[in-house]
Amino acid sequence: MSVEDTLFIRAARRKPVERTPVWFMRQAGRVLPEYRAVRESLSLLEITRRPEVCTEVTLQPLRRFNVDAAILFADIMHPLIGAGVDLDIVDGVGPVIQRPMRTADDLEQLRPLDPAADLPYVLESVVLLRRELGDRVPLIGFAGAPFTLAAYLIEGKGTREFTRTKALMYGEPDLWSQLMDRLTDMVIVFLRALATSGAHALQLFDSWVGCLSPRDYISFVQPYCRRIFAELASLDVPLIHFGVNTSTLLPQMARDGGTVIGVDWRLALDDAWRIIGEDKAIQGNLDPAVLLAPAEVIDREVRDILTRAGGRPGHIFNLGHGLLPNTRPDAVTRAIDAVHDYARRRGTWKDPGEMLTAGGW
Amino acid sequence: MSVEDTLFIRAARRKPVERTPVWFMRQAGRVLPEYRAVRESLSLLEITRRPEVCTEVTLQPLRRFNVDAAILFADIMHPLIGAGVDLDIVDGVGPVIQRPMRTADDLEQLRPLDPAADLPYVLESVVLLRRELGDRVPLIGFAGAPFTLAAYLIEGKGTREFTRTKALMYGEPDLWSQLMDRLTDMVIVFLRALATSGAHALQLFDSWVGCLSPRDYISFVQPYCRRIFAELASLDVPLIHFGVNTSTLLPQMARDGGTVIGVDWRLALDDAWRIIGEDKAIQGNLDPAVLLAPAEVIDREVRDILTRAGGRPGHIFNLGHGLLPNTRPDAVTRAIDAVHDYARRRGTWKDPGEMLTAGGW
Repeated sequence: MSVEDTLFIRAARRKPVERTPVWFMRQAGRVLPEYRAVRESLSLLEITRRPEVCTEVTLQPLRRFNVDAAILFADIMHPLIGAGVDLDIVDGVGPVIQRPMRTADDLEQLRPLDPAADLPYVLESVVLLRRELGDRVPLIGFAGAPFTLAAYLIEGKGTREFTRTKALMYGEPDLWSQLMDRLTDMVIVFLRALATSGAHALQLFDSWVGCLSPRDYISFVQPYCRRIFAELASLDVPLIHFGVNTSTLLPQMARDGGTVIGVDWRLALDDAWRIIGEDKAIQGNLDPAVLLAPAEVIDREVRDILTRAGGRPGHIFNLGHGLLPNTRPDAVTRAIDAVHDYARRRGTWKDPGEMLTAGGW
Repeated sequence: MSVEDTLFIRAARRKPVERTPVWFMRQAGRVLPEYRAVRESLSLLEITRRPEVCTEVTLQPLRRFNVDAAILFADIMHPLIGAGVDLDIVDGVGPVIQRPMRTADDLEQLRPLDPAADLPYVLESVVLLRRELGDRVPLIGFAGAPFTLAAYLIEGKGTREFTRTKALMYGEPDLWSQLMDRLTDMVIVFLRALATSGAHALQLFDSWVGCLSPRDYISFVQPYCRRIFAELASLDVPLIHFGVNTSTLLPQMARDGGTVIGVDWRLALDDAWRIIGEDKAIQGNLDPAVLLAPAEVIDREVRDILTRAGGRPGHIFNLGHGLLPNTRPDAVTRAIDAVHDYARRRGTWKDPGEMLTAGGW
């Protein structure tokens, strides 16, 4: 079996599928007790530096859930970590950078990224995972997008308003473009290294870009995203472009070169797909908070999304953002079952009666 | 002169104006040194409890800036404060509620609001301000919308994900509707009291509603906003309906009964107005972060918004959210001057050569 035959890759390429593939952003991580057990002795970044443990943590959700893809356990900040930026991932806060970058001098300290030398453990994890997964389950690699990396670098951590980021963007457009160019280079070499090491698909996470107006997106972000997708196109792996709060940016994002556009829940899936265009695949878009609701609400909301997708080839079921920390694993199972049930009722798919992705790992 | 002749009220009623009126959310407050001087000895809530000081703080921006409206210095949480909820406004955090509300028993502790008995100082401030302003400058009163008040009550403070709020909304729809009904009653009596005390216009702030999908807005929020606007319609004052991050909710919000729809910068003003419909006035929509940019960027962005408004009656210039704490007052002046300059160049307006709103207060 080739990975091209999997539901995930077929849907990403807008080929017909007998059942909508499903995976969850942050499926490897904090919602799983078996992950929290690992975290008792290792920090998030320590896990990523130990390929054996990283592989184990990436596989954990595949043992528990019938998901149709694995996503490498890593952080969106890995390109910056590899380039020597002193940062930590703080529980309940996210990435925190010791010395935020705000001047041209700071920029000089941002050296180019050489993934094989700087992040060998990440590539080693990909190799180990491919040894486990083969081509039976697609493995997704990912990185933060240049805007989101820039925002973290400048602010030092997540904020609500992104005032320093925007002040630099508006006030020092030359410095901004130099910074974004360097980050773009880093993202390209990092994602390319993940793919050549064995990742079957790549996702660009622009978590914070939704704070921008469409005009600012076009001026300050789009050229860099376009360069990323143009330079990665020859890899011929599906490229997922995802952001939160991007409803008004979707007409632009759809033209940036991604194969699949990830959307949050602020637009109904059919409306979002209309905006993106039928020549793109779409990933989403359950509000992660729905997984905190009673089972029948989960069923109803999953069905609504699948009904809006209308069976058109090119839909990958996912959340509109990552799993929330206090999500119960059985809510994740319920959502997956609801996706399966939808296909079963339509008669397009027969449950094989065993874990889809549990191949003994 | 009647207040009906002011630029602000005429624009709110979509009557032709010789110049676009301009005011700023949070114009009274933290960006002014004279306000920070007051804050050295009094907390935000203490200021609101002293009508003389509250009046002074409300007038401060009118002395410094050529704004076309005054907005009562108060907090969106005042209806809850009046109803006896134990909350504080913490610098850099916002409202913090000591005992968040999460059960039917908690709901019982939320007593009805009687503004004259519970918040006499707020109404007294309105009376004092009207004595100062007369009908020359419109006075805007405001309150948080039921969803935003509910979110604060349930979460205890602002959050990024609103997980507890959504969990209650999805999981206990009856409790949700009881809570929203009570909050709606409180908002109605509060806003009505502001208007009958002398406020010329009312703004409903739904700061957090942008975390919802359009479907959830329709099910869980819209009925309450509609009741508010329906019950306040007989006051015959302009009713401004404002939220942040509401691009995908605007088609619904436009049908809820507000006279003026406030929009943030995530849609270009002309696109937002097209969605809202020409039968509504529109308020917005400069990204507050633009006021941290160089003067020529401020000029360019203000001009872009006014050009998109295209001289159609019904535009009130404002930010897409409140002034950011580190905004320099001269950036506010620059934006106002750019609004004036636009009308002057079009030949529709001649600068009177003196402070527009400086009537000796």
